[in-house]
Amino acid sequence: MKILIVNGVNIERIGSREKAIYGEQSYAEMMDELSVFAKKRGAEVEVFQSDLEGELVERICNTDYDALVLNAGAYTHTSVAITDALRYVTLPKIEVHISNLFGREDYRKILTGGATDGVIAGFGINSYKLAIIKLTEEL
Amino acid sequence: MKILIVNGVNIERIGSREKAIYGEQSYAEMMDELSVFAKKRGAEVEVFQSDLEGELVERICNTDYDALVLNAGAYTHTSVAITDALRYVTLPKIEVHISNLFGREDYRKILTGGATDGVIAGFGINSYKLAIIKLTEEL
Amino acid sequence: MKILIVNGVNIERIGSREKAIYGEQSYAEMMDELSVFAKKRGAEVEVFQSDLEGELVERICNTDYDALVLNAGAYTHTSVAITDALRYVTLPKIEVHISNLFGREDYRKILTGGATDGVIAGFGINSYKLAIIKLTEEL
Amino acid sequence: MKILIVNGVNIERIGSREKAIYGEQSYAEMMDELSVFAKKRGAEVEVFQSDLEGELVERICNTDYDALVLNAGAYTHTSVAITDALRYVTLPKIEVHISNLFGREDYRKILTGGATDGVIAGFGINSYKLAIIKLTEEL
Amino acid sequence: MKILIVNGVNIERIGSREKAIYGEQSYAEMMDELSVFAKKRGAEVEVFQSDLEGELVERICNTDYDALVLNAGAYTHTSVAITDALRYVTLPKIEVHISNLFGREDYRKILTGGATDGVIAGFGINSYKLAIIKLTEEL
Amino acid sequence: MKILIVNGVNIERIGSREKAIYGEQSYAEMMDELSVFAKKRGAEVEVFQSDLEGELVERICNTDYDALVLNAGAYTHTSVAITDALRYVTLPKIEVHISNLFGREDYRKILTGGATDGVIAGFGINSYKLAIIKLTEEL
Amino acid sequence: MKILIVNGVNIERIGSREKAIYGEQSYAEMMDELSVFAKKRGAEVEVFQSDLEGELVERICNTDYDALVLNAGAYTHTSVAITDALRYVTLPKIEVHISNLFGREDYRKILTGGATDGVIAGFGINSYKLAIIKLTEEL
Amino acid sequence: MKILIVNGVNIERIGSREKAIYGEQSYAEMMDELSVFAKKRGAEVEVFQSDLEGELVERICNTDYDALVLNAGAYTHTSVAITDALRYVTLPKIEVHISNLFGREDYRKILTGGATDGVIAGFGINSYKLAIIKLTEEL
Amino acid sequence: MKILIVNGVNIERIGSREKAIYGEQSYAEMMDELSVFAKKRGAEVEVFQSDLEGELVERICNTDYDALVLNAGAYTHTSVAITDALRYVTLPKIEVHISNLFGREDYRKILTGGATDGVIAGFGINSYKLAIIKLTEEL
Amino acid sequence: MKILIVNGVNIERIGSREKAIYGEQSYAEMMDELSVFAKKRGAEVEVFQSDLEGELVERICNTDYDALVLNAGAYTHTSVAITDALRYVTLPKIEVHISNLFGREDYRKILTGGATDGVIAGFGINSYKLAIIKLTEEL
Amino acid sequence: MKILIVNGVNIERIGSREKAIYGEQSYAEMMDELSVFAKKRGAEVEVFQSDLEGELVERICNTDYDALVLNAGAYTHTSVAITDALRYVTLPKIEVHISNLFGREDYRKILTGGATDGVIAGFGINSYKLAIIKLTEEL
Amino acid sequence: MKILIVNGVNIERIGSREKAIYGEQSYAEMMDELSVFAKKRGAEVEVFQSDLEGELVERICNTDYDALVLNAGAYTHTSVAITDALRYVTLPKIEVHISNLFGREDYRKILTGGATDGVIAGFGINSYKLAIIKLTEEL
Repeated sequence: MKILIVNGVNIERIGSREKAIYGEQSYAEMMDELSVFAKKRGAEVEVFQSDLEGELVERICNTDYDALVLNAGAYTHTSVAITDALRYVTLPKIEVHISNLFGREDYRKILTGGATDGVIAGFGINSYKLAIIKLTEEL
Repeated sequence: MKILIVNGVNIERIGSREKAIYGEQSYAEMMDELSVFAKKRGAEVEVFQSDLEGELVERICNTDYDALVLNAGAYTHTSVAITDALRYVTLPKIEVHISNLFGREDYRKILTGGATDGVIAGFGINSYKLAIIKLTEEL
Repeated sequence: MKILIVNGVNIERIGSREKAIYGEQSYAEMMDELSVFAKKRGAEVEVFQSDLEGELVERICNTDYDALVLNAGAYTHTSVAITDALRYVTLPKIEVHISNLFGREDYRKILTGGATDGVIAGFGINSYKLAIIKLTEEL
Repeated sequence: MKILIVNGVNIERIGSREKAIYGEQSYAEMMDELSVFAKKRGAEVEVFQSDLEGELVERICNTDYDALVLNAGAYTHTSVAITDALRYVTLPKIEVHISNLFGREDYRKILTGGATDGVIAGFGINSYKLAIIKLTEEL
Repeated sequence: MKILIVNGVNIERIGSREKAIYGEQSYAEMMDELSVFAKKRGAEVEVFQSDLEGELVERICNTDYDALVLNAGAYTHTSVAITDALRYVTLPKIEVHISNLFGREDYRKILTGGATDGVIAGFGINSYKLAIIKLTEEL
Repeated sequence: MKILIVNGVNIERIGSREKAIYGEQSYAEMMDELSVFAKKRGAEVEVFQSDLEGELVERICNTDYDALVLNAGAYTHTSVAITDALRYVTLPKIEVHISNLFGREDYRKILTGGATDGVIAGFGINSYKLAIIKLTEEL
Repeated sequence: MKILIVNGVNIERIGSREKAIYGEQSYAEMMDELSVFAKKRGAEVEVFQSDLEGELVERICNTDYDALVLNAGAYTHTSVAITDALRYVTLPKIEVHISNLFGREDYRKILTGGATDGVIAGFGINSYKLAIIKLTEEL
Repeated sequence: MKILIVNGVNIERIGSREKAIYGEQSYAEMMDELSVFAKKRGAEVEVFQSDLEGELVERICNTDYDALVLNAGAYTHTSVAITDALRYVTLPKIEVHISNLFGREDYRKILTGGATDGVIAGFGINSYKLAIIKLTEEL
Repeated sequence: MKILIVNGVNIERIGSREKAIYGEQSYAEMMDELSVFAKKRGAEVEVFQSDLEGELVERICNTDYDALVLNAGAYTHTSVAITDALRYVTLPKIEVHISNLFGREDYRKILTGGATDGVIAGFGINSYKLAIIKLTEEL
Repeated sequence: MKILIVNGVNIERIGSREKAIYGEQSYAEMMDELSVFAKKRGAEVEVFQSDLEGELVERICNTDYDALVLNAGAYTHTSVAITDALRYVTLPKIEVHISNLFGREDYRKILTGGATDGVIAGFGINSYKLAIIKLTEEL
Repeated sequence: MKILIVNGVNIERIGSREKAIYGEQSYAEMMDELSVFAKKRGAEVEVFQSDLEGELVERICNTDYDALVLNAGAYTHTSVAITDALRYVTLPKIEVHISNLFGREDYRKILTGGATDGVIAGFGINSYKLAIIKLTEEL
Repeated sequence: MKILIVNGVNIERIGSREKAIYGEQSYAEMMDELSVFAKKRGAEVEVFQSDLEGELVERICNTDYDALVLNAGAYTHTSVAITDALRYVTLPKIEVHISNLFGREDYRKILTGGATDGVIAGFGINSYKLAIIKLTEEL
């Protein structure tokens, strides 16, 4: 099983910014950790990050993968384009968020998530790990 | 570790209603399955269900447990009272939903979830299981 | 045929309050009158009243009846929980209101009624009687 | 007693359109059925149908009748003019709807109904019959 | 000078309805009074009344008059069609209202008036007379 | 093939008003031009114009034609009645507009168009011609 | 009869600003013209102008006059204080506006006018004159 | 004089939560303090607390008291049911709040308070005391 | 202790207007009564009234007093300026209202009160007295 | 004449997704068909597709073409940037849509179209063909 | 060149309040500093401060100056009167703000600024200095 | 000191479009002028322009500069992504706009500016120059 992790705008800078949450771990190290975590569960992870809305659309639709974990960053709240793209993809797809959006600004409403299977938000890097568990394990 | 699962209004009828999703499993059987699932991970589950908003508030605040998994049902969208109650509880607390609310009616916005640590929605009974994993495992 | 009449919050006090409409008749007498009215049409009436939203949900879902007549009182305008509960019940169900809500405050919009078969509003106790006629007679 | 039934825009085409509900019965046959139904209860029915908002206003105000049953069709949701007209009429007046509007589109809110005595919605042709019962029988 | 007075929906019934304001005077008598009032100022009045939005549009646009006094009744608040029609007419045109709309319901906002030269509201039949004065006298 | 062109409120006055766009051509000449245009493509055109919402509803529903081209004028933005009527008609139907509504006032939103097959707006008389081409030619 | 004309914020500068409408006439000359106009009708005019909301309130409430003509300028749209003050005054009171507000910005809604007897808007200085006619003549 | 103090959802937990405000005093001690405070002024206090909206409604309407002091907690903002109940009670009734709601979240608007005699908010336990003073003393 | 009572727009006219509430007592007499009331509790009252928003701001900020009781009148609902001013003052400050605003028009929302310590509304002159009690007594 | 067809986000995937509408035809084949269609009318078509909002802006503004046909996909509803870009281009420009947006979700309102000459929506690939006809033929 | 600096409500108290930003400098010292700053650039500064909306309007319109720098304080967000006044002034005029309003409360939207040449916000006293540079230097 | 000027979507076309403002100066010449302007003040300017939201985010976050001047163009109004990016950058950052947005369309509200130090809008190329002065000079 090949899981595509798509990280949207500003996500690759999240490691250096929020050290209170992630410690000294860099974004690359975090993605490596997810890769190892998935491998233990028999899955291969490919990570794609872009700050461009259109590139995220393209990568999501280029369906050479078996399951999708998406954190679209700020585009979560505004992108009809990504929402449409997710609707075309029929593979398993989970939206994750590092922070708990429901306790934040009003404009951080979830638009894209309605086109995925489900949403996991608020658990830091563990949001990704829970998504990988959901995709790889028989619960 | 003792995990309190609080199920709100209409949840105990969900097994008999949505057989397309849960098969022939009854609500009681589902809760038993969660209990077994938690026990394997070293945790004890206590399940509380009520259709009364105020009873949910009381049970949440009566903190004789180590972690909370909450599915408030329809009160998720309207209850300032439960939201306030959650703010008083400083133990780990996760909101779960069986369906993916973001793809449903506009009035199903999440109000209570902003007062929990995070939200897991859309994975049926597995939303509960992922919450239990998060509470019991070192990811 | 057994008809369950569910009266919500404040309804049991309506007799003593609105004497201009009901004369000196008490709530109990009114319900008795409905019972007699139904019996003449070959139906048995059971009356349930509660001021608690959750108890109304429970009684509605505990489907030991053949048809439902519901006046949820103020919960008509706010209760997603009762609306959900009504959706689960596939028996004949009619929402009634004593006053004509459409000529009253803006916040008295009908939320629950969309999950019933139809709504009868504005005819005092006769709203109930028309519902009973609808349920018991071949029109 | 003379009851005026006023049917607004598109209502006369409802028979040919919604055969799932009314069977093969034509609009004329339905109105005839209502006429017979009323006659049994000692009342005479006059039916007026128009697709023109202003003609409905005029007919309502031309009060050569003892009671009014109104289904204004789509004008129910938009016509301040009909609402005003209804306010001038002090005879018994009941608004009826064939479908249960509360489960339909948001813009199908009831504007005119607040100026009638009450509203009966959701019971097909029986909405009319219940109105006739209300007007002709001592309940 | 020929002044066209266009009275919209329900206006011709206003005399019989609001006796507190107009005394026993009928609508016809009121229009006659306006006619006499105008004649004294050297102007001829033609009165047109219709309850149909489209007929009002047509009469307004059929510009065989020198000035327009319009009271569109309830269509004042909803008719884009009359507003458009007024924009095509470049003759003097004044909107009048019998009651002071600004102290009434929220939905009685003025839509059509923005396409006239000005609005006179709140003075009963004198709203018409002030409009006639404006059209006929050198102030 | 018989195409019914339905022109709503104020449309027949559009030729005399907007000479900057249409030159000296009268409304009648324009409709004649459309008739000739359609005849060349083997279709017969019947033109119906009314300023009355209800008459438009009636003409649309009186389906003695093979295809419909509708320009409802200002009723485009407000008429639930025409929208309902269009839903009952299953023949090909196209909404046209002379001006590009999307660059105009906010209240000129399209309500009726959602009940047609499609919308062509902004090309003057050519909006009608493109609709006729769509209905008559194999593109 | 003593008529108080209250001119609110910016009104005294209106003469110098809008020469296209008033010609070379100054504000003082305009008020003089109104004074002469009233005197011919047997009334005395006192003019009060202030740019301060509170001073307008005070002058309106200091009821040493028989009738009020008010043009509150921009405070028309925002002042609850003036609206309250007008409610306390039971003498005849008319709101006037120089321009036709209904064709201007959305935020120029009329708040204060609902507390007067009526509104005259759109006729330049003649709005004042029509108000004086209404107050002084038997129409 | 018997004063009923009704405390709504979460109020009984307020003592243990907000020690910065109340010191180490428990909820029971606070209510005792109010009881003593009232007794000095010749009044007897009965305290009722419930987290259930319906129980609050019932206690309010069960009018075996001379005056009401109500702090409905979070139901203050959402409960049409309590608002209706308060309207039925004609005894003196005062709404109190511990915190100053006007400086808090937007959704903490006061709904129930409009059906009481007045509101006292922002003074901690002293909000209750001021209410008792108002009910018991000749000011 | 010196208490400054600031009364805003229209307040000084409240005595003469609302005799049903205050009897024949004038505004001056009422303020005198408050002065006596405070003196008994060892405090000196200074009363300031203005109909001008800016003068209220200035008086509030000119902090030669120990505590503030404010009734801003209609500015309560609209004045960001007074709200800002109150934020700069760190002395005890209480907002009072004579009527119970929560049962009045929608636009009478409380803006300024969020910047005071608390609000007392609905008790006529006793709203002021309760504020004085709060400021002067050890409750 | 050179016509630039600009297809926005997700459009190039539309062929493979919506086979019910387009049959087995691929996106490339469809664009080829449009190219052939235009060539018959003496025009050359250049097709540009991008999922990136900014690239669409750039291509639109790089005006080496004689006319523009734009289908911006989901950016139609959100892109102020494309709307601005279209305003700078003074060549003929037509917005097309494959589906009839007016019958779809509320958030699919047309933003960009107000900056083009007109809009053609709802006719599948024929929306493009009608645009090409408009640009190339003397109608 | 004479520059008028108009400071609105609460601005003169800003020095004493926000010492973290301005140090121990008083309002008078700050205005002096601006005066010196302008003089170096060949301009004379006159400072006007008022807490009264109407006085600000008057000073702005009394155009005995060559350029205007305005900080209306809280009136920036609510004053239609000042906005109108600014529209009448055709001299150079710049709105300045000490803080960056765009990161503050929602109700701090800029209303008056649309009637000036431009806005400079967020730079403390330097907002004024930048405005003076703009007015006095050839950039 | 190295200042990064980031110009967003459509900005590089602004020179050719708005000749009334900039004369014949091209975008390149304008940027050169800013470079010279900064150099005189001892600062080096690097200009980055992109029509792609994501590239703007990346350039802003790639902090090899000492201060930022940003004109995001249309993304100013819609981009949560750029707003988030700005929050991560702690260097001096100023938002500039060529036109005075406050006098333009409603949807041109400022979203990104709240995450910068301040905003300068309405002065054409001088908005940039004032920002450079602020960054380079001791005012």
